[in-house]
Amino acid sequence: MSDAAISTTSAVSEAEASGRVAEIFADIKSTKQIESVPNFWRTLASNQDLLESVWGEVKRWMHPESVGREPKLDAQTREMIALAVSATNGCAYCLNAHTAAAQQLGLDAETLGEVMAIASLFNRTNALADGFQVTPDVRPQ
Amino acid sequence: MSDAAISTTSAVSEAEASGRVAEIFADIKSTKQIESVPNFWRTLASNQDLLESVWGEVKRWMHPESVGREPKLDAQTREMIALAVSATNGCAYCLNAHTAAAQQLGLDAETLGEVMAIASLFNRTNALADGFQVTPDVRPQ
Amino acid sequence: MSDAAISTTSAVSEAEASGRVAEIFADIKSTKQIESVPNFWRTLASNQDLLESVWGEVKRWMHPESVGREPKLDAQTREMIALAVSATNGCAYCLNAHTAAAQQLGLDAETLGEVMAIASLFNRTNALADGFQVTPDVRPQ
Amino acid sequence: MSDAAISTTSAVSEAEASGRVAEIFADIKSTKQIESVPNFWRTLASNQDLLESVWGEVKRWMHPESVGREPKLDAQTREMIALAVSATNGCAYCLNAHTAAAQQLGLDAETLGEVMAIASLFNRTNALADGFQVTPDVRPQ
Amino acid sequence: MSDAAISTTSAVSEAEASGRVAEIFADIKSTKQIESVPNFWRTLASNQDLLESVWGEVKRWMHPESVGREPKLDAQTREMIALAVSATNGCAYCLNAHTAAAQQLGLDAETLGEVMAIASLFNRTNALADGFQVTPDVRPQ
Amino acid sequence: MSDAAISTTSAVSEAEASGRVAEIFADIKSTKQIESVPNFWRTLASNQDLLESVWGEVKRWMHPESVGREPKLDAQTREMIALAVSATNGCAYCLNAHTAAAQQLGLDAETLGEVMAIASLFNRTNALADGFQVTPDVRPQ
Repeated sequence: MSDAAISTTSAVSEAEASGRVAEIFADIKSTKQIESVPNFWRTLASNQDLLESVWGEVKRWMHPESVGREPKLDAQTREMIALAVSATNGCAYCLNAHTAAAQQLGLDAETLGEVMAIASLFNRTNALADGFQVTPDVRPQ
Repeated sequence: MSDAAISTTSAVSEAEASGRVAEIFADIKSTKQIESVPNFWRTLASNQDLLESVWGEVKRWMHPESVGREPKLDAQTREMIALAVSATNGCAYCLNAHTAAAQQLGLDAETLGEVMAIASLFNRTNALADGFQVTPDVRPQ
Repeated sequence: MSDAAISTTSAVSEAEASGRVAEIFADIKSTKQIESVPNFWRTLASNQDLLESVWGEVKRWMHPESVGREPKLDAQTREMIALAVSATNGCAYCLNAHTAAAQQLGLDAETLGEVMAIASLFNRTNALADGFQVTPDVRPQ
Repeated sequence: MSDAAISTTSAVSEAEASGRVAEIFADIKSTKQIESVPNFWRTLASNQDLLESVWGEVKRWMHPESVGREPKLDAQTREMIALAVSATNGCAYCLNAHTAAAQQLGLDAETLGEVMAIASLFNRTNALADGFQVTPDVRPQ
Repeated sequence: MSDAAISTTSAVSEAEASGRVAEIFADIKSTKQIESVPNFWRTLASNQDLLESVWGEVKRWMHPESVGREPKLDAQTREMIALAVSATNGCAYCLNAHTAAAQQLGLDAETLGEVMAIASLFNRTNALADGFQVTPDVRPQ
Repeated sequence: MSDAAISTTSAVSEAEASGRVAEIFADIKSTKQIESVPNFWRTLASNQDLLESVWGEVKRWMHPESVGREPKLDAQTREMIALAVSATNGCAYCLNAHTAAAQQLGLDAETLGEVMAIASLFNRTNALADGFQVTPDVRPQ
């Protein structure tokens, strides 16, 4: 059974998933320690290669321990970057999901506010540097 | 003497700056511990209120110690957010300036690569969540 | 009677349309072979020149046969470009309308997934190329 | 003779233009009262329909007197909107061209600074409203 | 009492506001001559420095008379720039708020249509100039 | 020996590459049938995981035959999507690289013009649909 209501394409329910899709759904729940597969992943499952491709990348960069990679950034910093990019692009789903993820990692409201303060400030200065076409400063090598 | 070459508007040189503009130029060099005023600030000086406004905000959020504010994020994390936003917007000036700033704070090439890896990953997932119009997951309150 | 609910400005209903607006509404329904005028066009009708301007452009590029133009791209490819741009900009109305249009042209879920896979991939590589300020490769002329 | 250097596609020189392209080139120079055809239009001429389409729209909205349309906005306000959008998108060509156009219309550096101040401020508040996913306020009808 | 429903973070209600936040809430209502504090400002109040920072900037540029600044642009023009930027970024909250603000200043539907016509036209020409990588025209100094 | 000039970070030259990086460089040249490694890939090599991650994704979606995947879209259509996204984001490196790639696949100037015509048209209609906050049309299920 598919659920047309949650997106412009049909999402794959956990009940109807089989084969590689079912395996990835199980891996998502196990890696993220959650009870059900989020709408994002159920929607990507309409194309199995896409599901595999994006989940592989999210595992690699956002769950490095699950692939034995030694990260340079900690989990909170990774979520802050996710939030800064998503605020710049105005992606509602991503902002909902990653604000929740950041809160679960212990990011309090005041710190979230500082992330948004700095992300929004650079949206301002980006528009100014581009708007005036400011040439990069020459730096000593 | 103004320098028309560095932007679409005339930048104010340090030599011609006077009054409030000269004071802000001095504060920029002192706060940032640099020898000359970057092109960005010299360009904003074409409108004194704009220079004052943007410098005030950059001091508040990027140089919190200069205004006696207790930041939640450290200087490296702030620069990573600046880079993530600037990469998303493709702002050349900002990427040059803040990559240099991050490097001066000790961010090595591999860590910078991880910042860009995560920022670019969310540019991808943002396009997917928006592209499929995925509805936010319902969460227990 | 206008319908304030569907946008921040008043949309023109088919019943109240007259003159040039009524003619364009009829042309939209006839060209697109649909029964009612979509909200987008009813909203643009608040400024008759805007309605005429945008409909003229959409006819020219998306319905080339209606203006006797020989297109280089087929209808499915045109819709894929529409979807790739709209996913990049995150435009909800456009994604809803053009996903439906693509589906009516026979684009199946797996192909739509490939369009989104590629569009999202380039949102990622764009952020990387800009983020690192990579210089274009020199090419033999 | 075409000029490959100015863009990723071949631009059409004024000397090689003929037929409809030559007519549009002449109209561009006459309408804008300039001596040579800007690179933008020479590049669009690689596809004659594209040149015709975009020039028609620019005439309609930016040179309304040339098509007998009564504009609501004056020429300076139109250029300010062009600049605000181009700064938001970071379009170098457009910022160069429209800063020059605004200056020719008498927009001084301080006013240009105020345009950029306000455009950049809304790039900041847009990121904040999106970043926090603020719900629109309910308003009395 | 906080209101979690209006955003991904908790908004501060007017009843629970105290100290500096309560003062800014009062200043917002007085400066804008409105009866209640909009959701945007209540959400920013989760970080007091952010509220103070953004309100200070909005006062300076959008309510210049409240800070004794002599603006170059009138209130309608400022709102048009806000709308052009917000349409480019697709910020729902900002478009709702500033369309209402423009209407209260007397901007009629046809003029709003012309603002959107021009803002959208430059989103098109920006994509073309960038898409073809058109080089800026050389201009006589 | 690294080459600092081509980006804000150090690019890895082919001569200094070793181990996994050298293998990927060889795979890039072999898969793309080119003589030297483009700047983009040499820059990503500053973080080996990033190089591996992005090259894996580009192989999967843009060179499906190299990974034994049956694509739904042909190579020209894939390049058109790459160009439409890159024009929307204004990414210079990507536009240069993928215009060249499209030309090598036989895409003539007039067809490239049609791709840009349609991509730019949707940048316009996206701004309009968002700018007026048009509600999606209700469709029969």
